[in-house]
Amino acid sequence: MAENLAERFAQTRRQTEWLCEPLETEDYVVQAMPDASPTRWHLAHTTWFFETFVLSRWQPNYRPVSDAYQVLFNSYYNSIGEQFPRAHRGLLTRPTVKEVFEYRHTVDGRMCELLGAATDEELSRVVELGLQHEQQHQELMLTDLKYLLSCNPLLPVYRQSGRRSRLSVEQFRWLKFGGGLTSIGSDGDGFTFDNERPRHQVYLAPFVLADRLVTAGEFLEFIADGGYERPELWLSLGWASKQDLLWQAPLYWRKRGDTWHEFTLGGERVVDLDEPVTHVSYFEAEAFARWSAARLPTEAEWEHAVTGLPIAGSFVEGGALHPAADKSPAPGGLRQAFGEVWQWTQSPYTPYPGYRPPSGALGEYNGKFMCNQYVLRGGSCATPRGHVRATYRNFFPPDARWQFSGIRLARDA
Amino acid sequence: MAENLAERFAQTRRQTEWLCEPLETEDYVVQAMPDASPTRWHLAHTTWFFETFVLSRWQPNYRPVSDAYQVLFNSYYNSIGEQFPRAHRGLLTRPTVKEVFEYRHTVDGRMCELLGAATDEELSRVVELGLQHEQQHQELMLTDLKYLLSCNPLLPVYRQSGRRSRLSVEQFRWLKFGGGLTSIGSDGDGFTFDNERPRHQVYLAPFVLADRLVTAGEFLEFIADGGYERPELWLSLGWASKQDLLWQAPLYWRKRGDTWHEFTLGGERVVDLDEPVTHVSYFEAEAFARWSAARLPTEAEWEHAVTGLPIAGSFVEGGALHPAADKSPAPGGLRQAFGEVWQWTQSPYTPYPGYRPPSGALGEYNGKFMCNQYVLRGGSCATPRGHVRATYRNFFPPDARWQFSGIRLARDA
Amino acid sequence: MAENLAERFAQTRRQTEWLCEPLETEDYVVQAMPDASPTRWHLAHTTWFFETFVLSRWQPNYRPVSDAYQVLFNSYYNSIGEQFPRAHRGLLTRPTVKEVFEYRHTVDGRMCELLGAATDEELSRVVELGLQHEQQHQELMLTDLKYLLSCNPLLPVYRQSGRRSRLSVEQFRWLKFGGGLTSIGSDGDGFTFDNERPRHQVYLAPFVLADRLVTAGEFLEFIADGGYERPELWLSLGWASKQDLLWQAPLYWRKRGDTWHEFTLGGERVVDLDEPVTHVSYFEAEAFARWSAARLPTEAEWEHAVTGLPIAGSFVEGGALHPAADKSPAPGGLRQAFGEVWQWTQSPYTPYPGYRPPSGALGEYNGKFMCNQYVLRGGSCATPRGHVRATYRNFFPPDARWQFSGIRLARDA
Amino acid sequence: MAENLAERFAQTRRQTEWLCEPLETEDYVVQAMPDASPTRWHLAHTTWFFETFVLSRWQPNYRPVSDAYQVLFNSYYNSIGEQFPRAHRGLLTRPTVKEVFEYRHTVDGRMCELLGAATDEELSRVVELGLQHEQQHQELMLTDLKYLLSCNPLLPVYRQSGRRSRLSVEQFRWLKFGGGLTSIGSDGDGFTFDNERPRHQVYLAPFVLADRLVTAGEFLEFIADGGYERPELWLSLGWASKQDLLWQAPLYWRKRGDTWHEFTLGGERVVDLDEPVTHVSYFEAEAFARWSAARLPTEAEWEHAVTGLPIAGSFVEGGALHPAADKSPAPGGLRQAFGEVWQWTQSPYTPYPGYRPPSGALGEYNGKFMCNQYVLRGGSCATPRGHVRATYRNFFPPDARWQFSGIRLARDA
Repeated sequence: MAENLAERFAQTRRQTEWLCEPLETEDYVVQAMPDASPTRWHLAHTTWFFETFVLSRWQPNYRPVSDAYQVLFNSYYNSIGEQFPRAHRGLLTRPTVKEVFEYRHTVDGRMCELLGAATDEELSRVVELGLQHEQQHQELMLTDLKYLLSCNPLLPVYRQSGRRSRLSVEQFRWLKFGGGLTSIGSDGDGFTFDNERPRHQVYLAPFVLADRLVTAGEFLEFIADGGYERPELWLSLGWASKQDLLWQAPLYWRKRGDTWHEFTLGGERVVDLDEPVTHVSYFEAEAFARWSAARLPTEAEWEHAVTGLPIAGSFVEGGALHPAADKSPAPGGLRQAFGEVWQWTQSPYTPYPGYRPPSGALGEYNGKFMCNQYVLRGGSCATPRGHVRATYRNFFPPDARWQFSGIRLARDA
Repeated sequence: MAENLAERFAQTRRQTEWLCEPLETEDYVVQAMPDASPTRWHLAHTTWFFETFVLSRWQPNYRPVSDAYQVLFNSYYNSIGEQFPRAHRGLLTRPTVKEVFEYRHTVDGRMCELLGAATDEELSRVVELGLQHEQQHQELMLTDLKYLLSCNPLLPVYRQSGRRSRLSVEQFRWLKFGGGLTSIGSDGDGFTFDNERPRHQVYLAPFVLADRLVTAGEFLEFIADGGYERPELWLSLGWASKQDLLWQAPLYWRKRGDTWHEFTLGGERVVDLDEPVTHVSYFEAEAFARWSAARLPTEAEWEHAVTGLPIAGSFVEGGALHPAADKSPAPGGLRQAFGEVWQWTQSPYTPYPGYRPPSGALGEYNGKFMCNQYVLRGGSCATPRGHVRATYRNFFPPDARWQFSGIRLARDA
Repeated sequence: MAENLAERFAQTRRQTEWLCEPLETEDYVVQAMPDASPTRWHLAHTTWFFETFVLSRWQPNYRPVSDAYQVLFNSYYNSIGEQFPRAHRGLLTRPTVKEVFEYRHTVDGRMCELLGAATDEELSRVVELGLQHEQQHQELMLTDLKYLLSCNPLLPVYRQSGRRSRLSVEQFRWLKFGGGLTSIGSDGDGFTFDNERPRHQVYLAPFVLADRLVTAGEFLEFIADGGYERPELWLSLGWASKQDLLWQAPLYWRKRGDTWHEFTLGGERVVDLDEPVTHVSYFEAEAFARWSAARLPTEAEWEHAVTGLPIAGSFVEGGALHPAADKSPAPGGLRQAFGEVWQWTQSPYTPYPGYRPPSGALGEYNGKFMCNQYVLRGGSCATPRGHVRATYRNFFPPDARWQFSGIRLARDA
Repeated sequence: MAENLAERFAQTRRQTEWLCEPLETEDYVVQAMPDASPTRWHLAHTTWFFETFVLSRWQPNYRPVSDAYQVLFNSYYNSIGEQFPRAHRGLLTRPTVKEVFEYRHTVDGRMCELLGAATDEELSRVVELGLQHEQQHQELMLTDLKYLLSCNPLLPVYRQSGRRSRLSVEQFRWLKFGGGLTSIGSDGDGFTFDNERPRHQVYLAPFVLADRLVTAGEFLEFIADGGYERPELWLSLGWASKQDLLWQAPLYWRKRGDTWHEFTLGGERVVDLDEPVTHVSYFEAEAFARWSAARLPTEAEWEHAVTGLPIAGSFVEGGALHPAADKSPAPGGLRQAFGEVWQWTQSPYTPYPGYRPPSGALGEYNGKFMCNQYVLRGGSCATPRGHVRATYRNFFPPDARWQFSGIRLARDA
């Protein structure tokens, strides 16, 4: 098992660097908004994670590569020590990008040595957590970068991507689920985050789910019908956000003449009406659902419905870096469950009954963020394949739009 | 029934004015923070409610007392029309307090006429809603006023209240509940708000609840143990609020020399260690629970546990305007369930499965606020007796402290 | 002289209360913006001034009416002690208006006793300063109140005022001044503020001044010519203020249909094109001057030009509370020099060469505000007659608009 | 003359790039505060200046290197067109640093061609302005960079600089000046900015000036005497800034243990007590002067006093990048007049009598900034030698500290 882990370690770390290939040195440095981080910081922080939680613990007399990095690249672990302020990550121009890569490679070397030797189960578990953590940052690197590039009037291209087919998507269908007493969450063997545990019983009333995601074309109808001008469709806080932030369409959409364009990691292009709408906030998703005389699913409904489906979708390795239209013929079962856009649920992010955060600093990973956020499910076109599963809980504040977040509709049966 | 309703109408309206008796004209005018409203505004807004939702609908050719009041005293009903901005309510010095009372009395007169005649069921239902609404504002009048008076270095007294007994409260006990599939919410005959409906099934794991509320003395131990200095006890957002707002103790507590004092509606006095702690935010309640190796109850657990208990407590009519220590001898059942302090639950304020807001403007009463707020249960010493019940859901953002909000502990069984 | 002073003391204090006659209790309490103060506060602060600087010093064993008032009504005198925060003056509802009047009358009684006895020169000087100070607050009471009432959609009337004649003003004329070495400032016997001293020499190049003030009609041409849309007419900071604060016209102007109305202390009415434009910031005055191919006068030019003119104008006692059109036939000399609107000069507010602030707390009266403000000259329709003179220097930040501030044009000869 | 100009053009442009030699690519990109700009932007903007004001006008059919750069690198010239927002300059990672250098070199090539041909006087004048403009940006590049590097806990070194001698500075002496009617400003032949013109008469009362700059040691006495804790020493706005921004010492000073250190472009080192104090705001300079029972000079006094002195000092070419202690033996005349620190004057930045901004876009260079800023004189250790002169007027808001700004004392005679 240790060899397997060493291999997966190397593969995951390489994957992170592969995402950096299209970048210029300048692109690594800037923090375009407080929620986002410079690529340079992601590269260093994921390395710091292994240094802090693995090497410092399992390598006898381990000396960190740099004392300063211990502070600079700690994200939010108060138990570990002081942190450089999050909103100022973009002020740092040193260590340089080159030095950050050297830091990565030094730590990778030491990790290889460690993982080459016999490993115990606890070590494997923490390394696994570190790899999952790195995969989360792989996705953030892309979404943070997309936001950064979109601020530049030159609209730089990250990676060119291919063309789309000319078929249209079909009208969506409602799929029925009977509800009743069921279980969600994980107690199983494979890796899961603490927030997915423990598996527990919930009671569900019967419900229906749309068999596919909401498309850009459907969202355009909402806009055309005054969706952004009618307060009765919105939550009170949502309407306030919309007014303050001047939302008129999903993030990255811009009207040029009569045509909506959107900025993608492949540059700006005309909005494809068949693709899933993305970069919408919870507030927009919720308002769209109300306008549709529907609602968003709860996370329990969603999990119940997708359990057993294969984990297939665009995912980051596909290289499109944009959600794909589903043009397969209907009827079928639930489609686009994974790997296109994160699907907002109506469930606030709360601890499961019986939830216990891990002891020690790793207990700060999830639990302390369980307030004023909503759960998203399913993974996106920027998520590494194999990173998500039916029980996976992502979470963001209801006004966040820079993730690949989209909409699936639900209704009471 | 109509006569009964007319009588209850008169009684509730009188009760509002009774709360104003200790006030100077100046006290009616000021808005001490954006969340609070001037007393003058509460008096006018509750009147506007009856004018808008009852008289305009059931009195043929009704002409409003003033067109300007239609805008000035609309709180947040977009379907009704424009609203004077909430944060500017304190800029209005006209209509004067005297004119506002005249407005009330004119509307009261017309309501009496209307309710004196035969009434239909729909009218009764809306009047009932208006009375419940007025009771909610009675409590807000007191909490807003308390906040206002506390800003004045002269520390004015609203109403003197009596002395306390010298007995001490006993150590709290854990009460066990078996859980299982149960129902919460209301489908019954009596008045309930839309957010309490529909009654629906939930599954509860076994749990325990403390038999009484957390006391000021217990909270002081939390402070003494560095509770406000240890980030590991807090939610991440809670810690940020604490740092930004410089919280070191509950709202209204002030250390003079070595002794903690608190501002009450009866003036400033030494903190009574036996009384329930109050004016704490969700964040403080949650941190206190973690420090106690416990947690807050969910709203379903709370409702399940109190169902069937008598609705007894301090309530506003008692005149103490401060929660009372429970010095009854143990053991007994669950105590202080109602009418002392609103009890924070760990449940975000969300729609119940199958929830439908009423149609029309009254649909704006509850549903649109279901985001980034937490449910509180049980009513307080500022709540009118008879206003709360086991299914009643109050809600405030997690950093709100100016309500009479307190803590009951829970644990997994 | 003492009797004379006692009489003037009584007269000035009465005048302050006369300004309050049209007010409701509610109007005394509210602070409509941080720069303004509640009327209640003005009444108490001017009283505090006599208590602090006169009674405490000349009455043996003087005991203040209230210790709390020493803090509550200190404006900005650090040498005297702590101050209640300026921006929170509107949070105080106690002492009540009635109690504040009682405070005034108690202090007035003690002052009368003191002034009735023999007085020394230093005492007279400080009392005189207190009276001048009170006159400044009389003007602020009106401008603060005007701002407050204008925030109310009911547009309350402070005092009705009379009608205007139907003659038109004539085109203005340029008056020439030769310049050279001259003196400004005061060394004389009558009362002057420290900031008017010492008299000193300045060198002036030849210049011309407009013989009357800029009218509302002329300002309307500036608006019609895109004055608020053309950045090249504005100072950089001025343009930024205009953009941030959404200025499109002078404060209190509102377009109803095609007609400009303005809110006055006599209620809202159609803008009279012949009256001096007022409630413009330095930025607007400066932009208007540039648009007119002219400039604002320096304070030295202004003072040089008006020296020797009679102190005549509308002033507060006239009761119009609005600047009057000058319809006297031309040519004549310089008109509207005093008592209509404060005239912005291009001179930043700086110490005169050789300026020395008084020693002690009264040294905080003027000197510490000499930064980022501009000098205004001439007094306004809200200024007490006899309060201004040729050497008088008023000062406000360049974005202030709530004073009766207007424009006189100048040019290089 | 054209050849001479071409040579000076080449030399000045090279000098800018020489300042970049110690930088990593990452250092060019970040904007550490809204007032500062990324080095990348300075390099591009100074190039844009020549493209816009020279090549576009004198090269027939000139096509700009990039249309996008016309917007991206316009600082504040509304007459030229739209500008990328100043506060967002740090969001741009493209064009890359390499591309910006290519932009420079392309424009340099075209400028060489143009300047190689016969030039007219107007062209020479605009090129001269462009070179002076570039020199101003050379200084800003250093001060912006210093601020950026100081934000990094690693405290990176820009360039190592040499050691200091061990002599001490002598006590300063007061030099007397008779005053009277004199002239300041420029009408001469050499290059001057519009804001230095026209030469005009001013009347000065007799005054004295300190013969050298205030030292760090003297400023330390001010700190030790509670200078940062005593509001009576400060302007009211200055005290508010100090409180808001938590000033306790000059910018870049940090106490480690008992010893004050300061961050310099050569890294952090112990404060040298003999060196001129620098990185103080106008507010600190003014408070220091008051504490010293002195005042700051007016700009007319300063100019009168230094006229005729040689332009000697540290200047940027000296390479120390820090002001030098003056250890020459006294008595002598006025010392440290130029090239150490910019000396705050008490003069607000206003137009000289008869000032006319140039017509066209270049009129936006100076005039529109004449509000709420103070004049500084003399140049600094980061100023190019030959850039300053006796009539040169620099200007910054009174709270600016990131320039090399210091203090010379004055007094009435």
